[in-house]
Amino acid sequence: MSEIRVLTEDQLRGAIHLDAALIAVIEDAFATLARGGVVMPQVLSMHMPDVNGELDVKTAYVPGLPGFAVKLSPGFFDNPARGLPSTSGLMVVLSSQTGRVQAVLLDNGYLTDLRTAAAGGVAARHLSRPDSARAAIFGAGLQARMQLQALCLVRPIREAVIWARDPARAGALAASMTKPGLTVRAEADPARAAGFGDVIVTTTPATQPILRAGWLRAGQHLTAMGSDQAGKNELDPRCLDRADLYVADRVGQTRLMGELRAALEAGIVATADGLPELGDIIAGHHPGRTDPGQITIADLTGTGVQDTAIATHALAAFSKDS
Amino acid sequence: MSEIRVLTEDQLRGAIHLDAALIAVIEDAFATLARGGVVMPQVLSMHMPDVNGELDVKTAYVPGLPGFAVKLSPGFFDNPARGLPSTSGLMVVLSSQTGRVQAVLLDNGYLTDLRTAAAGGVAARHLSRPDSARAAIFGAGLQARMQLQALCLVRPIREAVIWARDPARAGALAASMTKPGLTVRAEADPARAAGFGDVIVTTTPATQPILRAGWLRAGQHLTAMGSDQAGKNELDPRCLDRADLYVADRVGQTRLMGELRAALEAGIVATADGLPELGDIIAGHHPGRTDPGQITIADLTGTGVQDTAIATHALAAFSKDS
Repeated sequence: MSEIRVLTEDQLRGAIHLDAALIAVIEDAFATLARGGVVMPQVLSMHMPDVNGELDVKTAYVPGLPGFAVKLSPGFFDNPARGLPSTSGLMVVLSSQTGRVQAVLLDNGYLTDLRTAAAGGVAARHLSRPDSARAAIFGAGLQARMQLQALCLVRPIREAVIWARDPARAGALAASMTKPGLTVRAEADPARAAGFGDVIVTTTPATQPILRAGWLRAGQHLTAMGSDQAGKNELDPRCLDRADLYVADRVGQTRLMGELRAALEAGIVATADGLPELGDIIAGHHPGRTDPGQITIADLTGTGVQDTAIATHALAAFSKDS
Repeated sequence: MSEIRVLTEDQLRGAIHLDAALIAVIEDAFATLARGGVVMPQVLSMHMPDVNGELDVKTAYVPGLPGFAVKLSPGFFDNPARGLPSTSGLMVVLSSQTGRVQAVLLDNGYLTDLRTAAAGGVAARHLSRPDSARAAIFGAGLQARMQLQALCLVRPIREAVIWARDPARAGALAASMTKPGLTVRAEADPARAAGFGDVIVTTTPATQPILRAGWLRAGQHLTAMGSDQAGKNELDPRCLDRADLYVADRVGQTRLMGELRAALEAGIVATADGLPELGDIIAGHHPGRTDPGQITIADLTGTGVQDTAIATHALAAFSKDS
């Protein structure tokens, strides 16, 4: 019986970053999902209304990888008033051969932040126009920052706008991200923000649409990554009708908790059957964007296979050290 | 942000035992479940057929407790050929106030073994006749041993018989458990074993019934704790018809993966609606056994609230130390 490796948030932050290698890892995870053989159960969700908290547990088994991750993601929404982030959690890595615990990654959600941002990069790489130079980010939180960073890794982004309900936060984020070769500014008008982006990313916890279908223009790619629960909704459901191509990270999830859910409920989309997944495009099972004028949408809810992939990536980094 | 406590299997084995205090903790957990307010989602189950493995994730939130546990229970059934136990796993304890990780209990299934045995003790305390002096145990594994130990904590057991498919294992277990005041012997005839016990406990992974309804006699209590998945079945479904009282640990689970499932499928039990749970009896919502001649059955599949209870109990023991 080998030792159980326990890695702290500080250790993980020091070793694992949002970079091209990580995007390749997450891209490969989606392709593996499309090729079949991956076992990915429905998310276990527990709501604790009296403490304004929730817990999600995700996992996925990927044949051929040495281990699989089980991720615990708590969200406790009274935390900010206590000076704590709402989300935290950890990942446990179990051996694919014996089931025994190999490692506990006490990341407090850091690896989730990374793999979520990396998925945005993967979506943009496979769905946006290769010449995309302008980004529009909706939201001003941590994922707003990281999604823009991810975009810059896969597309020649030179200008970006940030729209957020709180203009001061949008301005602060824009100022902190401007650097040589990248100009970022806040945009108070969401319609103008949407029109600006060759790539648009929505990163908010909105429960009512913040992006209207009429604001979209030919050639754009839009990634909606804020919705990960049945009550959330960032896009006017008509966006899905307006788009030439809708792609889910996992249809079984987006129909329950992504933008697809709202579009199905509104009757804008008749059925989830046959909709492509991001992995299908990476694996070459679906052509993806076939014309520069098309509008594409990626609906990302976060999948257990991303967790297993990044946990494996993180453990491998530390195995090299030891 | 406080430190995350990591406790090893050795530490936990040294501090937490199957004793009267633990049985009281688990008894209280069942009563709490009956009183309402507990949030206990469906078990997350993942099957990995190519490596003959499975993973169960259980959790329960109990209002008023400082934390809640999430338990990962892997079962990898090729492990014995490698010299490893099939089951292992850990529990993570999260704060009920902030969701942040408080502790990781690297117990390799030890706490599950304890809380499972303790539940058997709780069932016998509330359903068997107080004068029960004879036990019959079906199975010769770790739970066979622990269930008999638990019975001895709640009833004046003086004699016990062990039946197992492998008579040599039954004999070895019996020999190892005989001590002053307790005579244990192997019994090769399952009908005679069943007839012997004032309390019967089945602890096997059987997928076909090992106990026939015709073997039961008036006054007995029977706890079936082996079935915890849809494919398992220890009792002839007619046992449930023969019994005067059937009690589930959680009807929502036993109808899917306990003895109740097989009885529903066989049409022996018409509906799961209205069946009492162990907590109902402890909390006084149901009278339980009302006559010494009755036959009672407890169907135990294992619940997340037991995990949260024992994890809280374990953490409290270490908090006193520190």
